[in-house]
Amino acid sequence: MAKLTQLIDNEVFQAYATYAAIVLLKMMLMSLITAYFRIRRKAFANPEDTASFGKGESAKKYLRTDVDVERVRRGHLNDLENIVPFLGIGLLYALSGPELSTALLHFRIFAGARIFHTIAYLTPLPQPSRGLSWAVGYVVTISMAYKVLKTGLNL
Amino acid sequence: MAKLTQLIDNEVFQAYATYAAIVLLKMMLMSLITAYFRIRRKAFANPEDTASFGKGESAKKYLRTDVDVERVRRGHLNDLENIVPFLGIGLLYALSGPELSTALLHFRIFAGARIFHTIAYLTPLPQPSRGLSWAVGYVVTISMAYKVLKTGLNL
Amino acid sequence: MAKLTQLIDNEVFQAYATYAAIVLLKMMLMSLITAYFRIRRKAFANPEDTASFGKGESAKKYLRTDVDVERVRRGHLNDLENIVPFLGIGLLYALSGPELSTALLHFRIFAGARIFHTIAYLTPLPQPSRGLSWAVGYVVTISMAYKVLKTGLNL
Repeated sequence: MAKLTQLIDNEVFQAYATYAAIVLLKMMLMSLITAYFRIRRKAFANPEDTASFGKGESAKKYLRTDVDVERVRRGHLNDLENIVPFLGIGLLYALSGPELSTALLHFRIFAGARIFHTIAYLTPLPQPSRGLSWAVGYVVTISMAYKVLKTGLNL
Repeated sequence: MAKLTQLIDNEVFQAYATYAAIVLLKMMLMSLITAYFRIRRKAFANPEDTASFGKGESAKKYLRTDVDVERVRRGHLNDLENIVPFLGIGLLYALSGPELSTALLHFRIFAGARIFHTIAYLTPLPQPSRGLSWAVGYVVTISMAYKVLKTGLNL
Repeated sequence: MAKLTQLIDNEVFQAYATYAAIVLLKMMLMSLITAYFRIRRKAFANPEDTASFGKGESAKKYLRTDVDVERVRRGHLNDLENIVPFLGIGLLYALSGPELSTALLHFRIFAGARIFHTIAYLTPLPQPSRGLSWAVGYVVTISMAYKVLKTGLNL
């Protein structure tokens, strides 16, 4: 187990682990927010979810889309589209031997940008708030990918 | 290569690898089920997919949504939303030095919950079957994230 | 840090890192293509995105779906559904000690198949171009999963 301990004791890897967990927990929160709006707005996607509202036509009317439910779902999908690259590229970046301070800068900006993106999406804040926060996270990921490819390119 | 062998020889990591592969293969199965329903129900999303049914109006009618296709797709997306956090947090958890028995308990419950979630979604079983299986996988992931953040927090 | 350097110096892991970064960057490109079509076709999902087109009814008409935007979004989702398994299974595969030449074969075919899949989806090329490129990537991932499960099964 010694070698694994050395991996988890590596400061850059520890920072990656911390921020990866934070952004994933933030993404998981989107599921709860979706569920909250689905129940509050009575807007469901599956007939079996509306069974407790009665049978037949009385329940069918709750099988509908709701603007706020759809907004949270778009935010959730945007998280998936951006956090998956961060997880993959961030792991490789953490293993590519960056300076701790540089790595922390990348991870902190990414996590901050994604948290702000969610706030901007759900409030919603006027554009370009959401667009800019998306772009900041995007550029941080590209910057890490550049370091990964520069360090060890093996085509 | 010695160090890599030690990583793959680590029992907790091996357990993670096994269950990560299982849940990912289960998720990949959703693509096949979607394709199966699309072909059986003749419900496609792209004009080029319907070309073999003839040209013009006769093919256009197959460009439609089908309740069962949409159900499988929702199940697939739910997998993505929940299995991505498991992969990321589970890897960090496996590297954080948990007891093998505790780790296996987490991985087994998660995999079982996600397999049951798919069965509950596709059958469909009456609620709260699907909701509960979703919640079990969610709580297992939170529990692993807690261990990760407790072990090595580096903000 | 010695151990991490050994990990990143491992040739198979380096190849994995390279191709993982490539397919993730390709996936990230889908966000830019979506944004391009949304702006060019003036087809947005959020009211705040159309605010620059004026207020009231004049802006509301840009809250709509567009066939090309939806096409790119389906390609993006298909990437997520297939690249996430590649990232997870590919990492475990890279750690399972495969021959470098075999590993490179897997990674190159997968990356090539996914790049061709995007071209086939966006052009669009007649079927079965897209279907076959999807299937090739799928089979490569299954092949890697088989190696992972054969190497170290710990249920």
